[in-house]
Amino acid sequence: MEPPYWAVIFTNQRRDDDQDEEYDRTAQRMEQLAREVPGYVGIESVRDGSGFGITVSYWESEDAIAAWRNHPEHLETQARGRRDWYERYELRVARVERTASFDA
Amino acid sequence: MEPPYWAVIFTNQRRDDDQDEEYDRTAQRMEQLAREVPGYVGIESVRDGSGFGITVSYWESEDAIAAWRNHPEHLETQARGRRDWYERYELRVARVERTASFDA
Repeated sequence: MEPPYWAVIFTNQRRDDDQDEEYDRTAQRMEQLAREVPGYVGIESVRDGSGFGITVSYWESEDAIAAWRNHPEHLETQARGRRDWYERYELRVARVERTASFDA
Repeated sequence: MEPPYWAVIFTNQRRDDDQDEEYDRTAQRMEQLAREVPGYVGIESVRDGSGFGITVSYWESEDAIAAWRNHPEHLETQARGRRDWYERYELRVARVERTASFDA
C-alpha cells in the first residue's frame, strides 16, 4: 500500500513469559476481529522469550483506528490485558509517510 | 517524549535463525552509533526464533533520520545487510501523532 496510511505501534511487556493458551487464543481472536474492521490494512507481531513484544497494525485512516479501538469485544480485551497480562505497554499512533523495501 | 516525533519501523526476516555473532555485534554497534546522532530519541527491538524481527527507532525530526540513514558506517552496514543477512525487509518512516501508555 502506498503512503500515507497509519500505523499503531504497540510495544509491550508481558508479566511473565509462560505459555498462556488463553492469551494466545485471545490474540488470534483480536487479529481476526481487526481484519473485519473497514480500513484494516495488515498486522505484524513478534515476541521474544523474555515476554517483550512489538505489534504494529496498519490502517487506512484514523477513523479506522478509532473504530477498532472502540470495538466492544476489543474494549473488553484491552481491560483484560491491563488487569491480567501486561506489565507495561506503550501505544503510538503514527502516520506513515515513506516506505522502502528489500527482497532478496 | 511528547508527540509529534518520528518513528522508523523496520520489519525484517533474517535469512536463517542461526546464532550469528557478527550480526549481533554489528547490531549493537549500530545502536551505539545511532545514539550519537543528534535528534536520536530511543530504540526498541525484538526478534523471535524464526528470525523475524521488528525494530522501531524514534527521532526528533526527519533531519535526524536523514543524518542516521546517511551515516557512512551505517550505509556500509545497510549494504552488508542486503548482501548477507536479510531475506526481506520493510522500512516505514512515520510521524507519531498520539501516544498512550500503561504501567502496572
